[in-house]
Amino acid sequence: MSYLDSRYRFKDTDIDLISFGELLVDLITNEEEALLSEAEQFSKFFGGSAGNVAVNSKRLGANTRILTRIGKDPFGDFLLNVLQRENVNTETIQIDQKRKTPLVFVNKTSKTPAWLAYRDADKHINFNNDVKKIINKTKIVYLTTFILSQNPSRETALKVLEMINEDEKKLLAFDPCYRPVLWPKEDDGKKIVKEIISKADFIKPSLDDAEYLFGPDTPKNYIDKYLQVGANIVILTMGEDGVLVSDGNNELRLQVYSKKVVDVTGAGDSFWAGFISGILDGRKVKDAVKLGNAAAAFKIRGVGALSPVPDKKYLLKYIEEQEASQ
Amino acid sequence: MSYLDSRYRFKDTDIDLISFGELLVDLITNEEEALLSEAEQFSKFFGGSAGNVAVNSKRLGANTRILTRIGKDPFGDFLLNVLQRENVNTETIQIDQKRKTPLVFVNKTSKTPAWLAYRDADKHINFNNDVKKIINKTKIVYLTTFILSQNPSRETALKVLEMINEDEKKLLAFDPCYRPVLWPKEDDGKKIVKEIISKADFIKPSLDDAEYLFGPDTPKNYIDKYLQVGANIVILTMGEDGVLVSDGNNELRLQVYSKKVVDVTGAGDSFWAGFISGILDGRKVKDAVKLGNAAAAFKIRGVGALSPVPDKKYLLKYIEEQEASQ
Repeated sequence: MSYLDSRYRFKDTDIDLISFGELLVDLITNEEEALLSEAEQFSKFFGGSAGNVAVNSKRLGANTRILTRIGKDPFGDFLLNVLQRENVNTETIQIDQKRKTPLVFVNKTSKTPAWLAYRDADKHINFNNDVKKIINKTKIVYLTTFILSQNPSRETALKVLEMINEDEKKLLAFDPCYRPVLWPKEDDGKKIVKEIISKADFIKPSLDDAEYLFGPDTPKNYIDKYLQVGANIVILTMGEDGVLVSDGNNELRLQVYSKKVVDVTGAGDSFWAGFISGILDGRKVKDAVKLGNAAAAFKIRGVGALSPVPDKKYLLKYIEEQEASQ
Repeated sequence: MSYLDSRYRFKDTDIDLISFGELLVDLITNEEEALLSEAEQFSKFFGGSAGNVAVNSKRLGANTRILTRIGKDPFGDFLLNVLQRENVNTETIQIDQKRKTPLVFVNKTSKTPAWLAYRDADKHINFNNDVKKIINKTKIVYLTTFILSQNPSRETALKVLEMINEDEKKLLAFDPCYRPVLWPKEDDGKKIVKEIISKADFIKPSLDDAEYLFGPDTPKNYIDKYLQVGANIVILTMGEDGVLVSDGNNELRLQVYSKKVVDVTGAGDSFWAGFISGILDGRKVKDAVKLGNAAAAFKIRGVGALSPVPDKKYLLKYIEEQEASQ
């Protein structure tokens, strides 16, 4: 069990974080608030939750690997080029010779974006000896729901979860972003997501995520529902209403640090990167949450999932300023 | 057998042309001559050879249907909206409830464009009673190679070809655009394309198409090779070198009518639409080819596969002017 005051100690391993999920191209409308069917111009961005978390956590000092699968095509080359520029190790990325790099079309909006996913290689992340080796060597695994939604990537994820369960020093950070449209009709996606919630050390749902899983309810009730499912630390992000964090005994509420909203794409991923980097530092959960909140605040001021996250020193100073002004 | 001087008479049917192939979204780079991996901005256009031929032939007066399959998604809605605006009947378009509308990324170039296809619903065009009915009611079927490359669409195409073979009054216009990357490795795509060439009344390869099928050679030799395979009327488009047409006995060479090249995406489809509309008019093959050449000339002056093709009266006048000035 973990609490808001918990800190973690890790084995001395080669890798801090394995970001396990989707690496893809975001195609974001240039027009504000346009329907995808009506938008005429799209800008291409590096994206995918696993890619964003990897780049941002690397910027914040973590030794990160990405476990994902992309195509041997121009968009895959683009993603690899960005990662190399960001000094993120790309060795653990699986390259599919015949399937395509996934894409997500997103509309630029200050609300919850509409999106349309073109999936291919991302559904086929292999479990193999190389995967075993890197999981053995990591402190934290960040896992997304996107890749859980389709096999064989789901089977790979379940095997990775077994490995994490067998080593109590390894932490699981799970993003419980259930969207029925991504799941085959015959699969009980909610059940699978709830099972993994019960195994995770940290979950960070948004209000949308909570509504997709539990139906309409209040933030307080959502927290209770996640705890009932077996969650440990629940970090509920509520858009402009800030963040509510609970360990089942104590609660913490944070205000949003930034009032300026340009594009919320990838805000949750920036939050995760800030939070995970705090956990890796040995900070208390409640202080790591502040780092997540600060990283998200910087993200939403720019367009694209990778809009600049500053270095950690600057983020920490920013948190102090925000707390002083509230 | 058909000759450059042949004209065709058709049964009095409900439909002039079934455009059977891909209807998709073209995402064309805004940057000129940029690699797809490096381009940052894309513009969304109506596209796909079957879609382009349908719209352009409708503009030129043909009663057209499209036989294709798209997704129930924002890009499918976009394509349907364009077709409705263009007064093209959309009833024969199959809507897939779970698969996506296909996309092709293309770089804007005055040379042969680089492209990357995301395929899904287009591979699953069904053969059913509705398809049988419309094939029975049409004068001409235009068929693309794109949809032949994958099953079950290929099986549907082969059944449609059987129906055309059984009715000698129906014409087959086949675009022999073989690209190995679109075909499963285990399939002999060249063989299938050659078989259909031997059954078609008209084929319109480009020099690239010829090179993919036969390897490097001269235009004259390409014509001979197509004839040896069993082609009837061969219309070889040679970019800035114009068009070479042969019926096996006589040859016709046309200059390019436009020197201004903005974007060649869909130029071949405009050619097909002009040519087919001429055949439907009862014009001689050699005069229909001129209509094709004129329609292509208008297309390449604008961006996007649907840049305006004028009405037929204007096209005919334009041909006269071009011929007078040469």
